[in-house]
Amino acid sequence: MNQFLAGGFLRNLLAGMVAVVMAVVMVPVTAQDQKAEALKMDRSKILSQPGVFGVFTTYKWLPEWYELSLSERMDYVSRVMELIKKHEDSVLVDVYLTAGLGGRSDFFFRIHSLELAKVQTFLREFRQTAIGKHVEVLDTLIGVTKPLNYITKERLPELYAGLVSATYTGDIPRYAIVIPVKKSAEWWNLSFDQRLVEMKVHTLSTLEYMGSIKRKLYHSTGLDDADFITYFETSDLIAFNNLLTSLASIPENKYHVRWGDPITLGTILGPEKIVRVLAE
Amino acid sequence: MNQFLAGGFLRNLLAGMVAVVMAVVMVPVTAQDQKAEALKMDRSKILSQPGVFGVFTTYKWLPEWYELSLSERMDYVSRVMELIKKHEDSVLVDVYLTAGLGGRSDFFFRIHSLELAKVQTFLREFRQTAIGKHVEVLDTLIGVTKPLNYITKERLPELYAGLVSATYTGDIPRYAIVIPVKKSAEWWNLSFDQRLVEMKVHTLSTLEYMGSIKRKLYHSTGLDDADFITYFETSDLIAFNNLLTSLASIPENKYHVRWGDPITLGTILGPEKIVRVLAE
Amino acid sequence: MNQFLAGGFLRNLLAGMVAVVMAVVMVPVTAQDQKAEALKMDRSKILSQPGVFGVFTTYKWLPEWYELSLSERMDYVSRVMELIKKHEDSVLVDVYLTAGLGGRSDFFFRIHSLELAKVQTFLREFRQTAIGKHVEVLDTLIGVTKPLNYITKERLPELYAGLVSATYTGDIPRYAIVIPVKKSAEWWNLSFDQRLVEMKVHTLSTLEYMGSIKRKLYHSTGLDDADFITYFETSDLIAFNNLLTSLASIPENKYHVRWGDPITLGTILGPEKIVRVLAE
Amino acid sequence: MNQFLAGGFLRNLLAGMVAVVMAVVMVPVTAQDQKAEALKMDRSKILSQPGVFGVFTTYKWLPEWYELSLSERMDYVSRVMELIKKHEDSVLVDVYLTAGLGGRSDFFFRIHSLELAKVQTFLREFRQTAIGKHVEVLDTLIGVTKPLNYITKERLPELYAGLVSATYTGDIPRYAIVIPVKKSAEWWNLSFDQRLVEMKVHTLSTLEYMGSIKRKLYHSTGLDDADFITYFETSDLIAFNNLLTSLASIPENKYHVRWGDPITLGTILGPEKIVRVLAE
Amino acid sequence: MNQFLAGGFLRNLLAGMVAVVMAVVMVPVTAQDQKAEALKMDRSKILSQPGVFGVFTTYKWLPEWYELSLSERMDYVSRVMELIKKHEDSVLVDVYLTAGLGGRSDFFFRIHSLELAKVQTFLREFRQTAIGKHVEVLDTLIGVTKPLNYITKERLPELYAGLVSATYTGDIPRYAIVIPVKKSAEWWNLSFDQRLVEMKVHTLSTLEYMGSIKRKLYHSTGLDDADFITYFETSDLIAFNNLLTSLASIPENKYHVRWGDPITLGTILGPEKIVRVLAE
Repeated sequence: MNQFLAGGFLRNLLAGMVAVVMAVVMVPVTAQDQKAEALKMDRSKILSQPGVFGVFTTYKWLPEWYELSLSERMDYVSRVMELIKKHEDSVLVDVYLTAGLGGRSDFFFRIHSLELAKVQTFLREFRQTAIGKHVEVLDTLIGVTKPLNYITKERLPELYAGLVSATYTGDIPRYAIVIPVKKSAEWWNLSFDQRLVEMKVHTLSTLEYMGSIKRKLYHSTGLDDADFITYFETSDLIAFNNLLTSLASIPENKYHVRWGDPITLGTILGPEKIVRVLAE
Repeated sequence: MNQFLAGGFLRNLLAGMVAVVMAVVMVPVTAQDQKAEALKMDRSKILSQPGVFGVFTTYKWLPEWYELSLSERMDYVSRVMELIKKHEDSVLVDVYLTAGLGGRSDFFFRIHSLELAKVQTFLREFRQTAIGKHVEVLDTLIGVTKPLNYITKERLPELYAGLVSATYTGDIPRYAIVIPVKKSAEWWNLSFDQRLVEMKVHTLSTLEYMGSIKRKLYHSTGLDDADFITYFETSDLIAFNNLLTSLASIPENKYHVRWGDPITLGTILGPEKIVRVLAE
Repeated sequence: MNQFLAGGFLRNLLAGMVAVVMAVVMVPVTAQDQKAEALKMDRSKILSQPGVFGVFTTYKWLPEWYELSLSERMDYVSRVMELIKKHEDSVLVDVYLTAGLGGRSDFFFRIHSLELAKVQTFLREFRQTAIGKHVEVLDTLIGVTKPLNYITKERLPELYAGLVSATYTGDIPRYAIVIPVKKSAEWWNLSFDQRLVEMKVHTLSTLEYMGSIKRKLYHSTGLDDADFITYFETSDLIAFNNLLTSLASIPENKYHVRWGDPITLGTILGPEKIVRVLAE
Repeated sequence: MNQFLAGGFLRNLLAGMVAVVMAVVMVPVTAQDQKAEALKMDRSKILSQPGVFGVFTTYKWLPEWYELSLSERMDYVSRVMELIKKHEDSVLVDVYLTAGLGGRSDFFFRIHSLELAKVQTFLREFRQTAIGKHVEVLDTLIGVTKPLNYITKERLPELYAGLVSATYTGDIPRYAIVIPVKKSAEWWNLSFDQRLVEMKVHTLSTLEYMGSIKRKLYHSTGLDDADFITYFETSDLIAFNNLLTSLASIPENKYHVRWGDPITLGTILGPEKIVRVLAE
Repeated sequence: MNQFLAGGFLRNLLAGMVAVVMAVVMVPVTAQDQKAEALKMDRSKILSQPGVFGVFTTYKWLPEWYELSLSERMDYVSRVMELIKKHEDSVLVDVYLTAGLGGRSDFFFRIHSLELAKVQTFLREFRQTAIGKHVEVLDTLIGVTKPLNYITKERLPELYAGLVSATYTGDIPRYAIVIPVKKSAEWWNLSFDQRLVEMKVHTLSTLEYMGSIKRKLYHSTGLDDADFITYFETSDLIAFNNLLTSLASIPENKYHVRWGDPITLGTILGPEKIVRVLAE
């Protein structure tokens, strides 16, 4: 060891720095298990609670990916599965296939966690896997879920009831669409009541589509270059096109400085869906 | 198999994931055949019906492509032909040559299907072919056809009759032009009647060119970062320049926030054309 | 000596051009000759007639280019010369050197033809040559020449006379500048008479520079993402800077949504120039 | 030695040029030590004084990085540690991990110095290390600290007292966020008193968050393409999202022509933090 | 030699073409010397006269550069020095180090010449050197110097006197900043007198900084995508930040459509400075 670095503090610092800039931190399974109960990720809860971080990361295969054999790819995928399993107590990972549809991208992750740093830990370990080494990162969006702030029970009981009672009745959704949104300074400088008026119109426009389109909202101001990440699931893309055209036609749209750019459309790869694809 | 992944559910999940992130799913021909009758793609129908998805994907050759021998290329092209044939019951594939004309791109696909996921399946398999491995994706546009919503028989019988009776009388078109269009919030917030007034002017501007220029419209709002994909075919590019100048000169143009960017111009490679080129 | 290149005309022609691809497909000379008479490209005519397509393609050397030996490059250039010769009945190719001046680009082609598809054929063959394999395409502009539409003899006899009588009196131009132009919806929605007023001012601003600057205009609306390609030749770049400053200072400029972006400046490589460079 | 370069002046010039365009200048330790006392970087002072330059440089690993072994990476990191140590009298280097969160980037440096040229010297030597050879520079921001210019004791004693007494009471911050800001010509052309009114509103909006969010401001006008670099540290990203939403909702926001683009979010890698990560 | 190219004329032609598209033209020293007296570049004259072209070219090292040994780099730099020496009668080359400060760039050239084509010749030969083969061109700006057009002795004798008498009294400048500027159509359509009013305010804002900041202006309209290149030298970057903030705060700023984008900041590498760096 270099004498220059012999002191105890520097030694610790160096070792930590090594861990930080590089490889997979091999946390002992037992230590992890002790925290598991507390952090345990309940899918339905994590997807409905406020205060949950959502990270959307879009990837593109490097050209070398296409040169691998089937068995190599199977092996590589199995390692990512193990990694997702390893982190299941702290992050919930969904995978979407955008190849051929989502511009230059091939797939994206939607990752939920109560702690943003846990998402980073997972994604850094992912980049160390064989698959992670065969991708280029195209884009990252970061948001956090919050309680409804405009359409509340107290403020607008009827509309709220409509929202709450609206149920998705379509097939298991096959497509997901991610649309980042940024609103102008003029929007944010409207009074709350003025914005409430516009959000009522917005909500009324969406109500009729809630049987065929699922929605989820993440707040992003200050976390990335959008104000919101709007996430949709549907099997009826024509209804979706109608909904978005409808949302284009209300005054709120005049306050959009970013609406998409990019819009990312992919197919949903839930476990049950994967099985069905296999069975074909 | 890794013990960690031994459970039945996980095994299925893993297998599915492998299929998803990677290779060509080898669907048995017999299974496919059973669905063929139902999905059979009738070119003239698929090109005139509403509810059909259209995907435009633009490619650029990687430098390695130019190093291949003529016989290698011929072999590679034949495999793409087989792939198009294999999927002909679910997707209709047209190929256009943009090399030298369409900015940095070399060719693009226009793919029609009743199901967007089928387009993805085809395009993913295409990327696994030798040709697919020699290209870079530059851009993707996604739209869906709809019935005419402004100029209808009931609303404007005379103009509608003009539209319906207008017939393309030119040579077999040699060129195709793809122009994505996005309209401002101000446009979408006009009343339907105000927009109708502008679309009447638009339609009148196009009527005189319908003998020499074919048009087709796809709706994109929410599916990609445009509102429409406008697709044209012609052999008379001077008439086309006149038409587009004419469309620039009407009030509708004031509501365009994107009109092109990029405009993609290519030569049309219909099967009969390809054969002719081959025969030279 | 190759008999094919022996004639005096061929020598001059050859001297004026540099080019591109190519290829593989050796079209029999006899077949081509039969079409030659009809398509025969007369330089002075092709550069003055309406209805002629102009394609501007900008290239950058790949890093490998700089690794080649002088004799390899000489050999490669000779093949491009042959290609230009081969296509001389259908396309007229001019070459400009932008290295060191035109942003990231190294050279560009200006190609004229009565048929756009012929330009594509030439450029595709160019990409197949050894030189074409050592370049990256940065940009492509496509336009078509048209008769004067504002300043006509009938409408403005005096100004028209001034335009017609203005003669370039400078040295053989050493520099060419290509400036794409796009005008706003507001411009195109002005009445013809309003636009005529502005174009009179425009023309008056240019008249005093016509002794030292040559101009040529191509119409692009719908063919690429500009409305016009303005092409200039001069040996007096200070006069050119004065002219463009003058054109910035008239009302027409308020209607520009694109004016350059990029402006491409290169040195002209006419046959006589090349000889002069040799003689140095 | 080439005779052409034999003169004394040219020899010096050449030697200097070599030093300039290339390698690690091996300054003798003793010479450096003599200046150490004078330049000694006191972290708390350097982070609170005006007149200190701050450079933010964002990096992305090249694909080759992921191919290195753990021991290679450890060795490489140790060399960067030595370099930071070597320059500790002239530059103060902080490291932040953005991998998975900050768009395409993997980490960034925040470097403080009383002399901008010293930052350049450090960063040039960094690029010569094994780690520096495995990164691509994505972005650089340069700013300088200045005394408070709006909210002063004399002008607004109450608000100033609030600012001064506000103390960060949260956990050791885990996250840092860098947001470049550019203000419009309209903002800068407001009178000082008009801007003071807006900055009072701004300051009031931030006061309630100062217990959970640390802020630091760098002035950039003319040094890079922003007017300010705003730097934040926090462990409470939801509070941070609330603060930024609050700042979006005041009139000052109408004068932003750039606010982010990009916003860069990373985890903080202070020495003590690294030790903790190790201890896990 | 290829028999195909045996003719004398063709042989010359081809050789010249090769020279044009590529390599170092080895002009005999004697021939060059004869022109030397006439073209001799007097640094102080070339930097103060109107009618001088200035080209700013920004470079980034390719990754391979960092793999070279010190002796290789020394050798490569010596060849660039020889090249600068060889061209010293026609171009004046200054070098600036931007590594670590100027975004993604590593260094830039500022080259002055009475003839733009001479700059191209130098830069093309530079690309043929070993150093030129290890760089990527990021950006090029082209301008020309002109006499003062607003603040003249006749028009504003007092202000003119102030400008003329203002003398730089700072240390030898260590930093250079290059800021391209483009002004709106509204600016250029102001009357001369209106623009004069604004330029008076501009000049008054700069006067107090002329003791610590040197300025130089190049006119670019039509030569590249800016209207002006503003070049500054200083050792006091805080004064520079104050000056630019001051220029942001006057009405002229409302007419900027580009001001920077990019701003490029580098350290100045004059011969005397290099010697000093060596001596450290």
